[in-house]
Amino acid sequence: MNQLLAAVDLGSNSFRLVIGRVVDEGGTVQIYPVDRLKETVRLAAGLRADKTLDTSTTDFALQVLRRFGERLRSFHPERVRAVATNTFRVARNVAEFLPLAEEALGFPIEVIAGREEARLIFSGVSHSLPPSPAKRLVVDIGGGSTEFIVGRRFEPELMESLYMGCVSFSRAYFPDGIVDAHTMKQAEMAARREIEVIAKQYRKAGWQEAYGSSGTSKALGAILTESGFSEGGITRRGMDKLKDRLIKAGTVERAQLAGIKPDRTSVLPGGLAIMSAVFDELNIEVMRTADGALRVGVLYDLAGRDASLDKRDDTVRQFMSRYKVDRAQAARVRQTALELFKQLVPIPADEHQELTRVLGWAAELHEIGLSIAHNTYHRHSAYILEHADMPGFSRQDQALLALLALGHQGKLAKLQHLVTHHEQWIAILCLRLAAILYRRREDITAPPIKVSVKGSSVIVKTDAAWMSAHPLTDFTLRAEESEWRKVGFTFELLEL
Amino acid sequence: MNQLLAAVDLGSNSFRLVIGRVVDEGGTVQIYPVDRLKETVRLAAGLRADKTLDTSTTDFALQVLRRFGERLRSFHPERVRAVATNTFRVARNVAEFLPLAEEALGFPIEVIAGREEARLIFSGVSHSLPPSPAKRLVVDIGGGSTEFIVGRRFEPELMESLYMGCVSFSRAYFPDGIVDAHTMKQAEMAARREIEVIAKQYRKAGWQEAYGSSGTSKALGAILTESGFSEGGITRRGMDKLKDRLIKAGTVERAQLAGIKPDRTSVLPGGLAIMSAVFDELNIEVMRTADGALRVGVLYDLAGRDASLDKRDDTVRQFMSRYKVDRAQAARVRQTALELFKQLVPIPADEHQELTRVLGWAAELHEIGLSIAHNTYHRHSAYILEHADMPGFSRQDQALLALLALGHQGKLAKLQHLVTHHEQWIAILCLRLAAILYRRREDITAPPIKVSVKGSSVIVKTDAAWMSAHPLTDFTLRAEESEWRKVGFTFELLEL
Repeated sequence: MNQLLAAVDLGSNSFRLVIGRVVDEGGTVQIYPVDRLKETVRLAAGLRADKTLDTSTTDFALQVLRRFGERLRSFHPERVRAVATNTFRVARNVAEFLPLAEEALGFPIEVIAGREEARLIFSGVSHSLPPSPAKRLVVDIGGGSTEFIVGRRFEPELMESLYMGCVSFSRAYFPDGIVDAHTMKQAEMAARREIEVIAKQYRKAGWQEAYGSSGTSKALGAILTESGFSEGGITRRGMDKLKDRLIKAGTVERAQLAGIKPDRTSVLPGGLAIMSAVFDELNIEVMRTADGALRVGVLYDLAGRDASLDKRDDTVRQFMSRYKVDRAQAARVRQTALELFKQLVPIPADEHQELTRVLGWAAELHEIGLSIAHNTYHRHSAYILEHADMPGFSRQDQALLALLALGHQGKLAKLQHLVTHHEQWIAILCLRLAAILYRRREDITAPPIKVSVKGSSVIVKTDAAWMSAHPLTDFTLRAEESEWRKVGFTFELLEL
Repeated sequence: MNQLLAAVDLGSNSFRLVIGRVVDEGGTVQIYPVDRLKETVRLAAGLRADKTLDTSTTDFALQVLRRFGERLRSFHPERVRAVATNTFRVARNVAEFLPLAEEALGFPIEVIAGREEARLIFSGVSHSLPPSPAKRLVVDIGGGSTEFIVGRRFEPELMESLYMGCVSFSRAYFPDGIVDAHTMKQAEMAARREIEVIAKQYRKAGWQEAYGSSGTSKALGAILTESGFSEGGITRRGMDKLKDRLIKAGTVERAQLAGIKPDRTSVLPGGLAIMSAVFDELNIEVMRTADGALRVGVLYDLAGRDASLDKRDDTVRQFMSRYKVDRAQAARVRQTALELFKQLVPIPADEHQELTRVLGWAAELHEIGLSIAHNTYHRHSAYILEHADMPGFSRQDQALLALLALGHQGKLAKLQHLVTHHEQWIAILCLRLAAILYRRREDITAPPIKVSVKGSSVIVKTDAAWMSAHPLTDFTLRAEESEWRKVGFTFELLEL
């Protein structure tokens, strides 16, 4: 466990790469950053009115990713995790851009949900701050979204992600860089309106220390201190002085602030409006800046997966209990589905290892839709798995889980445009067969079938004696023939 | 409480009308049927391969509905409830047919979900059987679906509805009326396959008495007894003898069965296959036939709504607890939304009374989507409300609840093709305004707004002092102007 890991953070303002060395210090994992790259891509500013990304921005983003890819060329895929945040969540043409981005980087890119981003940020900040029993608020004003986390040590207690960021707000309210009192007020109001919804819950939870973890926080901290507006950290009075200065000067450039970096000029007004709103809504007096943030959280998560502390296992356990899953049935289906998958994909390549994990989780969660209604519950399972906040899971993970749940019964033709790899069909096949064998919800000593797949030809060999004692299972298996034919497979039932 | 009520049951095999007299017998409501009409429409047989209803069937159905309508002409709309079951649930062109059907009948028709059908059937059967502490199984093989209920007295414990019925099965397996051993076996297997999924749970729950409540049960009971195949009720041996007779004869007609009514001839083979499968999967030895069924349950439900024992109130309470709704917030929003609605629709016509109820429930349930995720939770609320099993609610009720939940925040333009009445816009307006006023989740002594609507012009008068003390609410209200403009309204904010 003394190895390099890499995290890539494709934010709405900047793209970052961090390489960390994992060190086991008497049972505690520590990660020391050994290399960092940062490029200001300002992806959120490339969003057109119709929410598609413009080509000059995506071209530049791809150049940056190629540079990152070069640095990562020697890394094993299991030791790299690339996450993408709000602009990837909202861009309409992300489906076209993402494959190009992955090709440029040379590694898969996971688009993560807002709360997952919040969880990773808190992990990153907590690992970077000195240990303390104090309850902490962490606010991360990004380019396109802002995350709010309250927690203690490494445990988040509240997590939210709101659709507002320094790039999107600067663009919407200060497109020409002109700052006046009215516009600043409007921008603050718009931000307060977003925060208002979560404010009560957060104030009720309370905290002893408030931290800002993003570029906006660091920029504000530096400007307020170096310009003499604050004696340390970000304060309300300091921000009021900064606003006065900006409004008098009319633009950030003309205000000639001490402590500002050039790449912050265009996004400062939006960031300042959001931070002021945060202070007002959450009654904050002073906020310290913190290192760490998303990319460090990603590194610790990656180290955890290594050490088989995959956060996603926890989440699946929580979901099984929240949605009152029949655990015995889930365990039966899981075991058989995984056994079949192992037979069919015997030497797992890297992506099959991951698919194997997802298949296991899908088997555990395929019935959660029963909590909504019995009829066509597989669709409800898929809906929940696609939309729920699932800590540790990327959007693509969730889409794959939803696909498997949707495919475990019912019509296969619906899946045709959703399946992207042949192995996904195999996983669906294994889950379906397992679900058919256990429809009675009773144990079977050994699965009475052997499956082989060659190209698009599926052969299921059945134990003749067992099948004639279970005519219903036999009948149901026969119905699979026409389902698989509809999606381009042949499906043959033979007696062993 | 000594009045007439009417229930119309638009089944997949027959349409029925029952008129009942409500009598309060020492605090207990009893309903005595005073008039009955039945017409064999065989709606399920009118489904084409593409799941649309053919014109000759719908034309005949409309004729029948006109006759029913004539009988009901003097009834107040609050004293009639018309429910439609499986064929209405599955027909693709139901959206075109339903308005015609409602016009022919002269009353609204509610398409009810399978479990709701099961609940009403159990209520009907329980009210028709002598009181007993015994646990009962009720099986209702309809034309297009079959309901299974286990319960005691008037309380259902398990309810399911499966997509198989005597019309659909007879059509799929015995289209020319030819009965042979192989086809009968295939039909039984297909039915067992459906039942298999619920069998374990039902056998585990157990029962002391089994009842069949539909036309299929009554026909089987009569044939088996009068042909000497059984000494009473439906038995497995009796059904085996009947099957032998049919298979030897080749068709129902040629079998010359005692006790069969002519309109049962074409649907007997499918009904028999399903009933045999029910006996096999649930290990039933003997089943009695029961009167009552759906239409009687509908009458008791209607009597309950009268006596303000609306089943839907129970369901909403259960959902608030299942989805852990913030009750204080729900109560605030509900009260204000209803107050505003009362101002705007002051003399409620019949449909507005119903809309008022639904608005109240929507206010109580509008946040249930938070159980899935915070972002765009209004969509998740709408998804759950549209798809969940909600005892007492018709599909249309649920669609309206979902519409209001979807409209309580976010973009209004999405609702444009879903809203069918002007008053629904008013209800959405009231719910939105209430949700805006209570975004902080804090009490307000009195709503600081007065609303008036004339045609498509909305005027909201605000208390100037309150608004200037709550600039954020003011800001949010102003943002409503553009939302309402997008759906063809003008929205003006004026100071009081």
